[in-house]
Amino acid sequence: MARINDHYLKLAGGYLFPEIGRRVRAFQERNPKADLIRLGIGDVVLPIGPSIRAAMHRAIDELGAEETFHGYGPEQGYDFLREAIVQHDFKARGVAVAPDEVFVSDGSKCDSGNIQEIFSSAAHVAVPDPVYPVYVDTNVMAGRTGPAAEDGSYPGITYLPCTEHNHFRPAPPEQPVDLVYLCFPNNPTGAAATRADLERWVAWAKQADAVLLYDAAYERYIRDPALPHSIYEIPGAREVAASIDYYMENARLIRAGMTAAGLRVFGAENAPYAWIATPDGVGSWGLFDRLLHEAHVVCTPGAGFGACGEGYLRLSAFGKRDRIEEAIARVKKTLTG
Amino acid sequence: MARINDHYLKLAGGYLFPEIGRRVRAFQERNPKADLIRLGIGDVVLPIGPSIRAAMHRAIDELGAEETFHGYGPEQGYDFLREAIVQHDFKARGVAVAPDEVFVSDGSKCDSGNIQEIFSSAAHVAVPDPVYPVYVDTNVMAGRTGPAAEDGSYPGITYLPCTEHNHFRPAPPEQPVDLVYLCFPNNPTGAAATRADLERWVAWAKQADAVLLYDAAYERYIRDPALPHSIYEIPGAREVAASIDYYMENARLIRAGMTAAGLRVFGAENAPYAWIATPDGVGSWGLFDRLLHEAHVVCTPGAGFGACGEGYLRLSAFGKRDRIEEAIARVKKTLTG
Repeated sequence: MARINDHYLKLAGGYLFPEIGRRVRAFQERNPKADLIRLGIGDVVLPIGPSIRAAMHRAIDELGAEETFHGYGPEQGYDFLREAIVQHDFKARGVAVAPDEVFVSDGSKCDSGNIQEIFSSAAHVAVPDPVYPVYVDTNVMAGRTGPAAEDGSYPGITYLPCTEHNHFRPAPPEQPVDLVYLCFPNNPTGAAATRADLERWVAWAKQADAVLLYDAAYERYIRDPALPHSIYEIPGAREVAASIDYYMENARLIRAGMTAAGLRVFGAENAPYAWIATPDGVGSWGLFDRLLHEAHVVCTPGAGFGACGEGYLRLSAFGKRDRIEEAIARVKKTLTG
Repeated sequence: MARINDHYLKLAGGYLFPEIGRRVRAFQERNPKADLIRLGIGDVVLPIGPSIRAAMHRAIDELGAEETFHGYGPEQGYDFLREAIVQHDFKARGVAVAPDEVFVSDGSKCDSGNIQEIFSSAAHVAVPDPVYPVYVDTNVMAGRTGPAAEDGSYPGITYLPCTEHNHFRPAPPEQPVDLVYLCFPNNPTGAAATRADLERWVAWAKQADAVLLYDAAYERYIRDPALPHSIYEIPGAREVAASIDYYMENARLIRAGMTAAGLRVFGAENAPYAWIATPDGVGSWGLFDRLLHEAHVVCTPGAGFGACGEGYLRLSAFGKRDRIEEAIARVKKTLTG
């Protein structure tokens, strides 16, 4: 029998979003007419803007004409694009990055999965708790831990608790690790790192000979000009696109609405996610099920992101304005009667 | 110090195409006016066709309008696409494949690299020799072998010799292996498998409890209606697009021209690659250098694909007609005076 990678079997707990999908489908089968509002997965709803569309149309026509057709591009990315990334994302904020330090990949989710292959299978990894599951699962598949404990945590991985107490901005680990995953603005808690936080992380990593993997996927959602956008950065003034503003107004509405509903809300100020404490004695999945069945609103249970996520829900700001308003009204009505 | 994946160090021999790139750049620096013809990397030159362009323009407009915009697609691929693949690539040839057996990925090169992760790190892998380097290098990075021997082969990998004697269609291995990579029509030799070949492989794999990874990247180049396009297939009549015909006419010209130049030519009949034996006593890199320096034609030395590739060159049919004709004329002149 061909020998397969047994480490996959440790993932038996299942991935968070398929489990949410199963519960939602079961609900829909029993309630086919329910008007569900989905604030679970962070997926955008606004059409792509005219300048992007025009550029994509031009690129297709370029590939359609014999004089301008080109095949494989350079394997690190086109020079014009690497230069533009350096200018817009780094030089504009006073950070010295050279174009040959930029790698244009075919997708950041694949990258988050693949990057751990650069490290030894004996390397020790630290992740925030709660955490984006891809960081953990790819290390589990690569064999960097034994089987999961009963609470779903892995004994070979170091978890950095993110709690209200530390404002969901964890301190560096005490024990030696090779690689730390950081994500700010954070998915799922919506917390944003300060310059002091990142200075502390960089100093720690230098002293500990560790590598920081800094995932800045949501940096365009930062609104506070004092906050850094990248770990390479000294912050500076910066324009952001209106699309982003639309989702951030959603985030503001969610924050205000959930607070008015009597819930404690974190994030949603410099991030497109609100991290909401569930009422005492109501677990993540308990409130998820109640909002699904009574308010017909789909959110993401915090427990799915790690042990420290128990007692929280994540609401995504990626929705249409009227649907977000409707969802807020329904949740308020469900919770405050 | 963060522990890195030491298996990468075994790749010290370097990847074939960067080495070719270094030699070509060195030549160009000394000969900046030389009119180089590149038949090395298999990269297309014809513009994409009007129906594809129109579909891409429509898709962009769909994402640009609020009513038709959509975010993440289904993680296995859109149903309409999976259904179309089943119809065109399988049902049309009498093969029963269900849409949920089709996975639409973000690129087959990444897939060829990632797929080995499904197998145990102790799994034993067999590859053809010569071979597309991605199959080998990704298994080396995953630690399935010790350091390379002096001839560049890896002791932990089983090589299946592809020679003129077996028409570049190797027999199944004698020793037990978990996974075999097969590629037909083959890159680099241009050999195409017969139905009897594939029947033998399937029977062997069943008996040996092994998995076959069948890379059919070049199946559209098959011209002989008796040859199977996929290992799942019973062959049948089939239309192919004109773009493909253009490259196959290039392949025919290369085959005829190189034969007229006194060389023995394989492939290039059901594949876009010609596999050309170098004259006695002239190695792969020897003829590569001679064609680069005297004919100003860039090809790919067969030795770069494995020990059995020594003594051969690969010529790619992916070029413009007039440049292919010019390259053939130059090679003829260089070799026959």
